[in-house]
Amino acid sequence: MSIDCDDIHRWMTDHRNEGIALLQRMVQEASTQGNESGVQQIVAEQLERLGFEVDMWEPGGDALLEHPYFASPRRTFSNSPNVVGVLKGTGGGRSIILNGHVDVVPEGDTSQWEHPPYSGEVVGEKMYGRGVTDMKGGNVSLFLALQCLKDLGVTLKGDVILQSVVEEESGGAGTLAAVLRGYKADAALIPEPTNMRIFPKQQGSMWFRLYVAGRSAHGGTRYEGVSAIEKSVKVLQHIRELEKVRNARIRDPLYERTPIPLPINVGVIEGGKWPSSVPDLVRLEGRMGVSPDETMEQAQEEMEHWLKKLHQEDGWFREYPIQIEWFGARWLPGAIDTDHAFMRVLVEQYRHVLGQEPVLEASPWGTDGGLLTQVGDIPTVVFGPGATEVAHYPNEYIVLDNVFQTAEIVAMTLIQWCGLTDND
Amino acid sequence: MSIDCDDIHRWMTDHRNEGIALLQRMVQEASTQGNESGVQQIVAEQLERLGFEVDMWEPGGDALLEHPYFASPRRTFSNSPNVVGVLKGTGGGRSIILNGHVDVVPEGDTSQWEHPPYSGEVVGEKMYGRGVTDMKGGNVSLFLALQCLKDLGVTLKGDVILQSVVEEESGGAGTLAAVLRGYKADAALIPEPTNMRIFPKQQGSMWFRLYVAGRSAHGGTRYEGVSAIEKSVKVLQHIRELEKVRNARIRDPLYERTPIPLPINVGVIEGGKWPSSVPDLVRLEGRMGVSPDETMEQAQEEMEHWLKKLHQEDGWFREYPIQIEWFGARWLPGAIDTDHAFMRVLVEQYRHVLGQEPVLEASPWGTDGGLLTQVGDIPTVVFGPGATEVAHYPNEYIVLDNVFQTAEIVAMTLIQWCGLTDND
Repeated sequence: MSIDCDDIHRWMTDHRNEGIALLQRMVQEASTQGNESGVQQIVAEQLERLGFEVDMWEPGGDALLEHPYFASPRRTFSNSPNVVGVLKGTGGGRSIILNGHVDVVPEGDTSQWEHPPYSGEVVGEKMYGRGVTDMKGGNVSLFLALQCLKDLGVTLKGDVILQSVVEEESGGAGTLAAVLRGYKADAALIPEPTNMRIFPKQQGSMWFRLYVAGRSAHGGTRYEGVSAIEKSVKVLQHIRELEKVRNARIRDPLYERTPIPLPINVGVIEGGKWPSSVPDLVRLEGRMGVSPDETMEQAQEEMEHWLKKLHQEDGWFREYPIQIEWFGARWLPGAIDTDHAFMRVLVEQYRHVLGQEPVLEASPWGTDGGLLTQVGDIPTVVFGPGATEVAHYPNEYIVLDNVFQTAEIVAMTLIQWCGLTDND
Repeated sequence: MSIDCDDIHRWMTDHRNEGIALLQRMVQEASTQGNESGVQQIVAEQLERLGFEVDMWEPGGDALLEHPYFASPRRTFSNSPNVVGVLKGTGGGRSIILNGHVDVVPEGDTSQWEHPPYSGEVVGEKMYGRGVTDMKGGNVSLFLALQCLKDLGVTLKGDVILQSVVEEESGGAGTLAAVLRGYKADAALIPEPTNMRIFPKQQGSMWFRLYVAGRSAHGGTRYEGVSAIEKSVKVLQHIRELEKVRNARIRDPLYERTPIPLPINVGVIEGGKWPSSVPDLVRLEGRMGVSPDETMEQAQEEMEHWLKKLHQEDGWFREYPIQIEWFGARWLPGAIDTDHAFMRVLVEQYRHVLGQEPVLEASPWGTDGGLLTQVGDIPTVVFGPGATEVAHYPNEYIVLDNVFQTAEIVAMTLIQWCGLTDND
């Protein structure tokens, strides 16, 4: 048997509506943290229909909860199951993990959405909805690739392990649980939204929380107090300087197209209790990017050391130092050699299917790739159909053609990487 | 009968411990908004023992709630009564309102207090506690003055109306209710904390709320979004400029000792929902001082006009203008002629009791004086024993000697203003 690009392409064309319908079903499951069971049910059904052996379990247990890289605001995951499907190969081939998360971030300010955030509405070439790009479109491209190979009668030598995980948006507890459960392979692919670029490097990130003190006083005699809001303005400006310093070091050509390779984002601010009082405490929370060329600990030390520099500039901070905590979500950075065999296979199939060179880049955000790489010791590439710039944004969308193109590339990659069973 | 300073002074010395005990009892009633009934019970008992006719009622009714100067976060005041006591004079004398509020602001960050905020602990010459200076010390000086005159057998020609009100800290609904209930007099005194200075001018103030928009994006590609926190920094700096402009106009010698006569305080900031997202909305709340030489409406227009100037500096604000609301607490400014008969009586008694010239100033914060002046048409002076700079502050205190000195001055002022009954 020989399978070529055209067979796969034709299948994708014939099954376009089904693919769109599946993606819409998945988007309509508003799978924010704690609400993933509905969409995981859909995933488990897909995998069973595909002939996979399905393992569905709620993450937990000490090995996970006490792991140094466990990060989640919660410690129990009732009704938030992982789903892993295994399709054993016939033997003698390279195995692969296809990993995708089903959890989505909150939709934010609903008034900024033109279409309801969980509608999955199709307009022209695009489907809209929270999670369609990050990353249900990518997940569906995996299902399409697998369904296509099944329908075309393909059997592979290497095992295919499809991991549908929770908790990616808050630090990877789902993928970590899958790693600790023992799932291993010769390579992994995560179809996070990359605008069809291939990311051999993935940024890590960590969440920080800062407390800035002030001294309260009556608003009518505000000069008697010290405004924690004013002091926070200095802290914000100081953090912006640190971001400049860290990014000035970046020389890797993979970051050429990225305006800020290692951003520091302040996402939350809260301070003060009473309009008529000078505020005495402000809390800031944010996300700091981590390069694959440094450890998480080095990045933390740099931020803590940098904040101490403010003490020299302003005596208030000497007396009332900024308190910093590292909490919640962390993503380990990851990197695969651009020359790794899996990279070569993927790049070749990309060329084959799309007839052009892929763009190689470093990802601007963390993924579970770091966990697979550093904890699972599994070489991982991130490549997917979603539009990076609308992930977490209102009016998130995906260009549907990209989903099917990705599915074709994944199908061809599976054949080349895992190998066709000899008597096909 | 002739009463002189010495009689009154001797009485104060003899009754010092009772006065301190009363103040401590009142401070220990943690009378934050909604929790005033306990302390008002103590006040009603005091007034009954003093022979006043007591009127205790919960503010309410359309005349109050629909009044243009009604300001409160709440519209019902169950269990939050006003107490007004009336001691009818024998006739032919000038009447007086003695007005004091019993509500206190929240204690703030408890860890910043050395003594528990509602202890009323006495250390050396001071008593500590939230509300002791703002303004239960002042209220007790009124009770001491009245008890002293009663014990010395004094009867006055003019009526004495003691108003113990709620809701001063959130905009004056208590005093407004008392004005609308019909209480009127030839002058009024409010012993708010003035560090023993006499305030013929009282600042007004209003609360504002601003909404600053951003555009959300993933924190890893924060350059795709617009941070509402960063935009708020510009707004904060712009507001600081407005404060400079408004204060540069102030020429009144009453403000000579005040670093910022008309402050604009930003007391609350809240924005963003997720550390990994660029924040798309920030809310700011604060308090703007209003001079007796302008109307509230003029001050509002100046702020709104000033914010529109940001549109020229930054196109983002042209597209997404800052939203402003005026809400909650407002204090009308007030002013009495420094030459008014009541001022002359008070200043003279101050000299008499303390043997030195009083300092005349403009108050740095609003009081219910504006309502008495502008709605009640009652000339009002603010003068009291509390320490202005610790009002609303942690470790709020009062110097106890000042309470008794104020009581002496008030007692002498009552005699001179209301007049002694002829056959005394």
